[in-house]
Amino acid sequence: MGEIRRDPVSGRWVIIATDRAARPHDFFVSRGERRGGFCPFCEGNEDRTPAEMAAVRAAGTAPNTPGWKVRVVPNKFPALRLDERLTVQGAGLHQVMSGFGAHEVIIECPRHVVTPTEMAPEEYAVVVETYLSRSKVLSANERLSYVLLFKNVGTAAGASIEHSHSQLIAVPVMPKRVHEEMTSCDAFYRDRGECMFCEMLRQELETRERVALESGSFVALSPFAARFPFELWVLPKEHSPHFGRLGEDLVPEFAAFVQQTLARLEVCLQDPPYNFAIHTAPTTGTDVGHFHWHLELIPRVTEVAGFEWGTGFYINPMEPERAAEHLRRVPQTQVEAKVAPMSVGTRAGS
Amino acid sequence: MGEIRRDPVSGRWVIIATDRAARPHDFFVSRGERRGGFCPFCEGNEDRTPAEMAAVRAAGTAPNTPGWKVRVVPNKFPALRLDERLTVQGAGLHQVMSGFGAHEVIIECPRHVVTPTEMAPEEYAVVVETYLSRSKVLSANERLSYVLLFKNVGTAAGASIEHSHSQLIAVPVMPKRVHEEMTSCDAFYRDRGECMFCEMLRQELETRERVALESGSFVALSPFAARFPFELWVLPKEHSPHFGRLGEDLVPEFAAFVQQTLARLEVCLQDPPYNFAIHTAPTTGTDVGHFHWHLELIPRVTEVAGFEWGTGFYINPMEPERAAEHLRRVPQTQVEAKVAPMSVGTRAGS
Repeated sequence: MGEIRRDPVSGRWVIIATDRAARPHDFFVSRGERRGGFCPFCEGNEDRTPAEMAAVRAAGTAPNTPGWKVRVVPNKFPALRLDERLTVQGAGLHQVMSGFGAHEVIIECPRHVVTPTEMAPEEYAVVVETYLSRSKVLSANERLSYVLLFKNVGTAAGASIEHSHSQLIAVPVMPKRVHEEMTSCDAFYRDRGECMFCEMLRQELETRERVALESGSFVALSPFAARFPFELWVLPKEHSPHFGRLGEDLVPEFAAFVQQTLARLEVCLQDPPYNFAIHTAPTTGTDVGHFHWHLELIPRVTEVAGFEWGTGFYINPMEPERAAEHLRRVPQTQVEAKVAPMSVGTRAGS
Repeated sequence: MGEIRRDPVSGRWVIIATDRAARPHDFFVSRGERRGGFCPFCEGNEDRTPAEMAAVRAAGTAPNTPGWKVRVVPNKFPALRLDERLTVQGAGLHQVMSGFGAHEVIIECPRHVVTPTEMAPEEYAVVVETYLSRSKVLSANERLSYVLLFKNVGTAAGASIEHSHSQLIAVPVMPKRVHEEMTSCDAFYRDRGECMFCEMLRQELETRERVALESGSFVALSPFAARFPFELWVLPKEHSPHFGRLGEDLVPEFAAFVQQTLARLEVCLQDPPYNFAIHTAPTTGTDVGHFHWHLELIPRVTEVAGFEWGTGFYINPMEPERAAEHLRRVPQTQVEAKVAPMSVGTRAGS
């Protein structure tokens, strides 16, 4: 049997199967064998990508040569371009815009690693700094409405290149799901005078049953109406609408916290394929002070079937409370075999 | 390069890549090898499924024995049950309902076939009749808000059993996407005094560039803002909100039309995994005379990545106009090698 839960942010309903007593090994999905051979993202192969737009590199090294920590290059097959004119047309029922926007790839490490837990904390902090610097550059473009940062790991999660990288897509329209989240937070704010996510955090930190990991400034929790087994949201504890305004002082903690969260997930599910995306207030537009940025992390361990596509109504065979419990129970020694402990200290849920 | 298109029904934006000149063979994905061995859905193995709730069977044959054409059984691991009490609770931000509902499996053929194109037209018409009869039974339950009929073919599409079957899930709440479609059609109706889908059909039948197949009463088209390569919608030409009220006279034509559409898709993409789901007005509630039922068919030939989950914003590497053209060009001889020609006659797009 199950129960039917409603996500307060998106309004979606999810059937949570509560009687199958699913365990992590029911969801082991291979990320795929490590590929050998040539990799265009490895140090030394800079001429095999489009020319870099930005990089964090050692003083005195030239663009598109070795010596970098993180490189940003245009997508080789960009869906959108900034040098395209922004045009809008209507044709009967239909609206269409030119392919104006940005589509960038952030190459996260000169070594051939496939996931952030294979990087040192200070290496991954440079990736987060790059997220912020690219967000700032693109947010300054008034014709862009939204900057989306996301990451795919494993072929089953849509990664065509194995070497750890993220993508950035900036678009001149507001994506539908973002619009829904804003609308929902706005309604909550008008009704209750506070941020919906702040209230959610208060409730979750009180019961702690869905909290997987906590540090001084961040929480990783399995949402009440999780769509997928082991779905996790990473939220800053302090109210903050824009990811792009994350303070420099919080960058190392956020980077390390994401690594710790991924390490627990990777131990628990034996290195699953996964996606994450950062949900943030848009770059422009009306006041969105009531939104609360967060990172949504989805291990790709079940197939999404016709039911889900047809209705936006999900069946999740793993109770989020159990998922959080499994993640809390991962021994710290196994986490530390993957990543260094956080200097600020973390606390597994409860 | 691409262009950014908006779907008028859901409000979602899709980036359509228009310059990669993708061809069908770029999207060949195996449905998986045919499995040998024991199948619980084959005739003779009736005792290996939960007891049947309904069946179309030869006069004089007993339930759960051979002699049937179509069998309806409860899902072996039902997410929802009709004998559960319907309870609703709030807990802080969260809403939760008991697992009240129905979860049924429609076994479509006594022989071991994996897709409707392997059935005779009159066999598949019995499947459609069963869709209608189950819809009617469950729509009569006032505590249920929505009946969803859907089908998964191939493991990559979420089918755990190969033998051709559909599923039915009936729920006490309105699924989110259905609610959005209704709201959008309602707004269009109030504004323009007509059904949005009727207007769409008028436009599509005029330009014909996205029409893949047409019969006397049905159209299969690739929607203007298709999310996926070769996504197709099958719509009745005549305005009709409820699938469950499909007239008996139209059942054979609809069944044969779905077979013809699937046959073209299967020839074009070499038997892809796919899902379809029927979108219909809800079973109860306010006036929904402005909705127009249809079937949404999605070949599962690309991975959905972080971007899509994060935003509800899709990238489709195949222009819907080209997809429709490829489907129109499938030689009729190859279609007829799969399924018998329709008695009412069809017309490939333009």
